[in-house]
Amino acid sequence: MPHNGTASIPLAMFILFVSAKIMAELAERLHQPGIVGEIFAGVLIGPSVLGWLAPNEFLSAMSDIGAMFLLFRVGLEVKSSELMKVGGTALLVACSGVVVPFVMGAAIMLLWHQGVNEAIFVGASMVATSIGITAQVLSAKGLLQEVSSKVILAAAVIDDVLGLLVLAVVSSMTHGKTDVLQLSLTALLATAFTVIVAKWGSHAVGRVLPKLNETLRVAESRFVIGLSLLLGLAVLAVSTGIAAIVGAFLAGLALAETSGPRERDLAQGVSEFLVPFFLAGIGLKVDLSAFGQLSTALLALTILAAALVSKLIGCGVGALRLGRTEAWRIGIGMVPRGEVGMIVAQIGLGYGILTRNSYAVIVFMSVATTIVAPPLIKIAYRSAAARGAAESPDEVLRMG
Amino acid sequence: MPHNGTASIPLAMFILFVSAKIMAELAERLHQPGIVGEIFAGVLIGPSVLGWLAPNEFLSAMSDIGAMFLLFRVGLEVKSSELMKVGGTALLVACSGVVVPFVMGAAIMLLWHQGVNEAIFVGASMVATSIGITAQVLSAKGLLQEVSSKVILAAAVIDDVLGLLVLAVVSSMTHGKTDVLQLSLTALLATAFTVIVAKWGSHAVGRVLPKLNETLRVAESRFVIGLSLLLGLAVLAVSTGIAAIVGAFLAGLALAETSGPRERDLAQGVSEFLVPFFLAGIGLKVDLSAFGQLSTALLALTILAAALVSKLIGCGVGALRLGRTEAWRIGIGMVPRGEVGMIVAQIGLGYGILTRNSYAVIVFMSVATTIVAPPLIKIAYRSAAARGAAESPDEVLRMG
Repeated sequence: MPHNGTASIPLAMFILFVSAKIMAELAERLHQPGIVGEIFAGVLIGPSVLGWLAPNEFLSAMSDIGAMFLLFRVGLEVKSSELMKVGGTALLVACSGVVVPFVMGAAIMLLWHQGVNEAIFVGASMVATSIGITAQVLSAKGLLQEVSSKVILAAAVIDDVLGLLVLAVVSSMTHGKTDVLQLSLTALLATAFTVIVAKWGSHAVGRVLPKLNETLRVAESRFVIGLSLLLGLAVLAVSTGIAAIVGAFLAGLALAETSGPRERDLAQGVSEFLVPFFLAGIGLKVDLSAFGQLSTALLALTILAAALVSKLIGCGVGALRLGRTEAWRIGIGMVPRGEVGMIVAQIGLGYGILTRNSYAVIVFMSVATTIVAPPLIKIAYRSAAARGAAESPDEVLRMG
Repeated sequence: MPHNGTASIPLAMFILFVSAKIMAELAERLHQPGIVGEIFAGVLIGPSVLGWLAPNEFLSAMSDIGAMFLLFRVGLEVKSSELMKVGGTALLVACSGVVVPFVMGAAIMLLWHQGVNEAIFVGASMVATSIGITAQVLSAKGLLQEVSSKVILAAAVIDDVLGLLVLAVVSSMTHGKTDVLQLSLTALLATAFTVIVAKWGSHAVGRVLPKLNETLRVAESRFVIGLSLLLGLAVLAVSTGIAAIVGAFLAGLALAETSGPRERDLAQGVSEFLVPFFLAGIGLKVDLSAFGQLSTALLALTILAAALVSKLIGCGVGALRLGRTEAWRIGIGMVPRGEVGMIVAQIGLGYGILTRNSYAVIVFMSVATTIVAPPLIKIAYRSAAARGAAESPDEVLRMG
């Protein structure tokens, strides 16, 4: 049967998936994390270089779902009680990791003689860490059980709630009057949702899941329940204003103590298939055409440097009580901005506050931080990786 | 971060997935195949009943990918050499299974005082079997190793090539002049692609994959190669004019003898997540509003009866040499029409040959055959299922 209408979808999937994996292979051979190759693949096949694919609704949906499964799988490997234990440090890391990049980004824009509103929006777009990249590197290297990894994960969740607040404040400051009551309610709701699920989700699942599972006759019922929880919490997260991936992560956390190897393998299958869409999808959004102007290119490099240094300092200082090695790891782990910065930039563009050039600068910064961070993470965790290589169950499975 | 733009995607996935699984559970409790529940769920949440979801580009893409993974997984469980062995019978089954429904459908429409072109298009839309439904039932019950199952799979692949030809002929007859050379070339290309991959794919993969796998450093390299082959053959299938799912099935076949349990589990994960989108996606397309008119409702029931009887007779007679039990199983296994009939109907509607009512009749027939067939398949295979229940590895895994 001719299915011409759907021809473009298998083709787009083939191009994206195979390019991502070829570039991942290349990166591994250059002793770089495969993830960097997959993001690069997106830049390469995207509009700026080869022009084989452009971002579209289908690819962006696949990318969103890929990010959800990535965080779900990471959540499955972490105990929420252990995240709670590092909650204080994570809160400090998240807060100073929001303030420093915001101030630094806005200051640079003002020094660059841009308007106040534009400076505020660029600062805001540098605030939120995109946890997917770091989580993928740590998970692939079997490093999720390190203390610093747990601080990074917890701080990234808090960071997402803070990012929601920053964006809300910035939007009302630059675009309309600030409704303090509304803002406080949003913050309260997002915080309550996150804390309740993180604190009691695992307990609730532990009580309900075994009984439910015994009753159900549907095939692979444990995995089906897991997927339902993943999708349900993603919906709730979005409706309280935070990212779907935070909901997916919380679902993973809640299931971490009750899931068996079978469910983990099935989830792993989905994430192996979809995560390349998330990674290459980031690269696909780069538009290099704005950098023909030298001044824009210089601004982009300055903002990139600020994005790196500000998270390193902000988050690192927040984590100093854990010692310098851990503080360094945490600072680097919080560097990637990914799609979150781009969303803020899109809103600014939509409001008419950001120019096309500033938008391109932010997209460049977001993508470049995701490419620069993984090799740095690899270096920062070198001692831990050497120690953990033989004992990690993740690595053993990979051999199979 | 507010991701309002993507809010609808997690929500649509949640509604569809959870409804499908609840209805599957209900169906199992009524001793019906779960698949029937999942299709029903689509009807229920769709525009005709609750109106929670309507078919859209995203859901239809998810449904297409779900069907691809379903057929890929089924292909993984079958040896191509064994399909080749039943090739003669399958060719007979496919051919008589195309002729009888076409003639019966067209005759009914003529008797119903419809135009000749409309009659031809309705006949054509009753031709092609949608193998996904039967494959899912047989795979879930661990019955893919039965001779009749292999005949059904092989016949469905041939049926897809024949369906391509029928649609091409019908389109040119009703819509323009017939280009015999073009038609023959299309047929030749589709046949050559299918035969070459089915016959030598497994051998080629057996030689290349182990070496390739040894060289690659990328994680889960065997699964990554499998996915690349799945997507690549789907693209090739579409470009030769046949369905993407046939390419996916051929990819599974080619990998069947070299794949280990790890790759099967990972593929199973993707298909557990996506197949509900395929199944409920079928139900979602039903539009019951056309059946307010008694005459349309009567026509729909008549066409449905013809769709059932004509495949039973056409395919059953073609398989009589295997004995009556097997012929009966094969006839029933070829009944579901699913999305293939709907695609033909859409083309007819686009040409202005089919009326809205005839279109609704075909969609009803397509969906109703997918709902009616699984319980009949279950009955037809009762003796085989009893025999195989304890020994099937598929069932053992389910217990875990």
